Amino acid sequence: MPDTAPNSWEARAAAHSFYGFTDLPSVRARGTVVVSHGEGPYVVDTNGRRYLDANSGLWNMVAGFDHAGLAEAAQEQYARLPGYHAFFGRMSDQTVMLSERLVEVSPFARGRVFYTNSGSEANDTMLKMLWFLGRAEGQPERRKILTRVNGYHGVTVAAASMTGKPYNDLFGLPLPGFIHLTCPHYWREGREDETETQFTARLAAELEEVIAREGAETIAGFVAEPVMGAGGVIPPSAGYFQAIGPILKRHGIPLIADEVICGFGRTGEVWGCQTYDFTPDAIISSKALTAGYFPMGAVILGPELADRLQAAAEDAEDFPHGFTASGHPVGCAIALKAIDVVLNEGLLDNVRALTPRFEAGLARLAEHPNIGEWRGKGLMGALEAVADKTTKTPFPGKLSVSERIANTCTDHGLICRPLGQSIVLCPPFILTDAQMDEMFDKLEGALKQVFAEVGAG
Amino acid sequence: MPDTAPNSWEARAAAHSFYGFTDLPSVRARGTVVVSHGEGPYVVDTNGRRYLDANSGLWNMVAGFDHAGLAEAAQEQYARLPGYHAFFGRMSDQTVMLSERLVEVSPFARGRVFYTNSGSEANDTMLKMLWFLGRAEGQPERRKILTRVNGYHGVTVAAASMTGKPYNDLFGLPLPGFIHLTCPHYWREGREDETETQFTARLAAELEEVIAREGAETIAGFVAEPVMGAGGVIPPSAGYFQAIGPILKRHGIPLIADEVICGFGRTGEVWGCQTYDFTPDAIISSKALTAGYFPMGAVILGPELADRLQAAAEDAEDFPHGFTASGHPVGCAIALKAIDVVLNEGLLDNVRALTPRFEAGLARLAEHPNIGEWRGKGLMGALEAVADKTTKTPFPGKLSVSERIANTCTDHGLICRPLGQSIVLCPPFILTDAQMDEMFDKLEGALKQVFAEVGAG
Repeated sequence: MPDTAPNSWEARAAAHSFYGFTDLPSVRARGTVVVSHGEGPYVVDTNGRRYLDANSGLWNMVAGFDHAGLAEAAQEQYARLPGYHAFFGRMSDQTVMLSERLVEVSPFARGRVFYTNSGSEANDTMLKMLWFLGRAEGQPERRKILTRVNGYHGVTVAAASMTGKPYNDLFGLPLPGFIHLTCPHYWREGREDETETQFTARLAAELEEVIAREGAETIAGFVAEPVMGAGGVIPPSAGYFQAIGPILKRHGIPLIADEVICGFGRTGEVWGCQTYDFTPDAIISSKALTAGYFPMGAVILGPELADRLQAAAEDAEDFPHGFTASGHPVGCAIALKAIDVVLNEGLLDNVRALTPRFEAGLARLAEHPNIGEWRGKGLMGALEAVADKTTKTPFPGKLSVSERIANTCTDHGLICRPLGQSIVLCPPFILTDAQMDEMFDKLEGALKQVFAEVGAG
Repeated sequence: MPDTAPNSWEARAAAHSFYGFTDLPSVRARGTVVVSHGEGPYVVDTNGRRYLDANSGLWNMVAGFDHAGLAEAAQEQYARLPGYHAFFGRMSDQTVMLSERLVEVSPFARGRVFYTNSGSEANDTMLKMLWFLGRAEGQPERRKILTRVNGYHGVTVAAASMTGKPYNDLFGLPLPGFIHLTCPHYWREGREDETETQFTARLAAELEEVIAREGAETIAGFVAEPVMGAGGVIPPSAGYFQAIGPILKRHGIPLIADEVICGFGRTGEVWGCQTYDFTPDAIISSKALTAGYFPMGAVILGPELADRLQAAAEDAEDFPHGFTASGHPVGCAIALKAIDVVLNEGLLDNVRALTPRFEAGLARLAEHPNIGEWRGKGLMGALEAVADKTTKTPFPGKLSVSERIANTCTDHGLICRPLGQSIVLCPPFILTDAQMDEMFDKLEGALKQVFAEVGAG
């Protein structure tokens, strides 16, 4: 129940905020959770309530909410150079060092880095780079972008157009020229008599057909998350990237890996493309890049795109694009530390160590008759609620089953995320075994309670 | 001359960066300036060279490069809650406080705030809000956006489409439906026999004609900087906003003030719209909002747009839009402090105190026969170079006169910005009289040197 005293945090929040990505009926009924501080993987609200954040904030706070080393890196840089840009042939030393480091930890032998403030801006920038390249190389008609249904690439007008979610219709999006292919989710999209291999082959054939229909010479790029994140944690069907990669290559269409969620360890390797054994032409990074301690995105161009874009820019004498805070020195100093924390201070190791326990926990809860499937990779997972397990029939939307599960979890001190009919878990990389058990125990209680309430199971 | 030793900062920068908004021939010839620390309004590079930054970074570092209070605000918040989002009815206490404060210091009696990570994202968000509103209110055809030639609104695909700069053609932008009206620059755009009043009336008539031609019911909004910034510091012609405001109101077209540069004191009032005495329907803020210490943008909705958008969102049960770092607690804590520093710790007072000296300095340099005009407001100003003062004939573009002036300034320890044929000055608000004199003296030397080199004057 929301606190309605006019000076309460909840009333103050409601009075002056225009909420985004928020179920407004829930906020009206339950009030806003106003978060005041953090302790490891927990956040604490202004009423002193403590929550295990199994969302890692928004997939990003992989080192938790009180990492001393990251706070120190920020503090040191604030004392040295608290802000600068990367325009006009000037940039901070931190920016130089981070670019060097990003290329070093990338799957590329060499490359070039361009900074933004978010994953949305990075995808939007990638699109502008591809359009710039097309015009520079005498192919101005290379404008269309291929993505997938349920793919999530951000919220700028262009990034939302790349995103394959029905809510974008509320804005009159996508813009023309953004084509969404079938989601590679075998459990939901596979036909009854189709093996996973056949399903993957069908999706590859669809890609061939779309390219033939649209004309390869009109397609600027194909953008894909290795594991779909905000689509509901959807790993690709077996052999998916091996099937589509050669088709794209044959038609000269760059493959862009949106690693905003997967990048820096979430799937158990540094990059999701390494987990799925493919090499993209460029990587879009954000979120764990700074462990959520600073807004930052990056486009990491592999050798071929780096060379072609550099040649195009030299020709134009300028690539007239950039954000005021592109390559912000504090963000770069934090990112340098965050990469170290993940790769060298045990976080990636812990992801690998925790994964069997995580998978076992998901598998155990998936035994419930109203969980149709568990899926995931590394430390990202989902449980999909169904009214009927055999037929995979979803619950009626008006029951808001996943929202009710998530709200019940919140009442018991666990933050997890409803996405469609799924509950998504993507805990911080610092989790202990005991904290993971707490997460599954609380979720199990909520599942049982809500399924009983809706008369299921 | 660039240092070409492979481990030099310059070589490392060049090897891994894809430069934006950078004259690439200049970087090849001169190398990258790698900035390592800051001292008041000065930055120092890795070679120990010190520069008075008369750009304030990119208009944003208004409190200089070593403000202890801002660094402390960051540090305290990093120790408390180093990151959170504003989705799902959750947000940090800092976010609640900043929204309250932003509405309080806005020209609006009440309103609602939505956070982004940049001015680009804020303009892009505003556009999505207007499109969302049109569809919710049964006017889905309200899609077109009116802006002005030389208006600068950012670099996302949509924000670049709003921007009235020719370089966007390199990306195949603007998208359709973005209409650029005449730049309200009387000195350059006024006809020979036209008074400033007549010029303003002509621009108002043009607006009426465009609305009649396109149909008011197809226009989502009009977006304008009170003083154009990256267009070359162009204050509006006399009575401009008083002339266009009522036309927009009559046709039900929201007027959005892009205050990314003007906001928080640059023009001598808190907001540029206050300096020019008009009330917009919403304000786009960024840059000085955090004094450049954190990437942040905000859309501040005035009462009418706030109410209409809130009703539309309640109806849809969600406004499905938001950035991972929207309302980041550290950014909000820094912004709360930055607002205090500007409004209550003497920075705005200093802008007002310095303005006469700034204007006198610009006026003095404008006496040079190759300066066609000085213009500005508060602490933003420009000097426009001309080959012939009487006819206002520009120098041939291939002479790169403004770039040469800026490069010569850099050689003498002053950073200022070439924009078209102009040199732009927008120093930090903390400048002393002596530092302002240093700025003008160095610029004067560079002007004389370059005009002599090109055989002018």
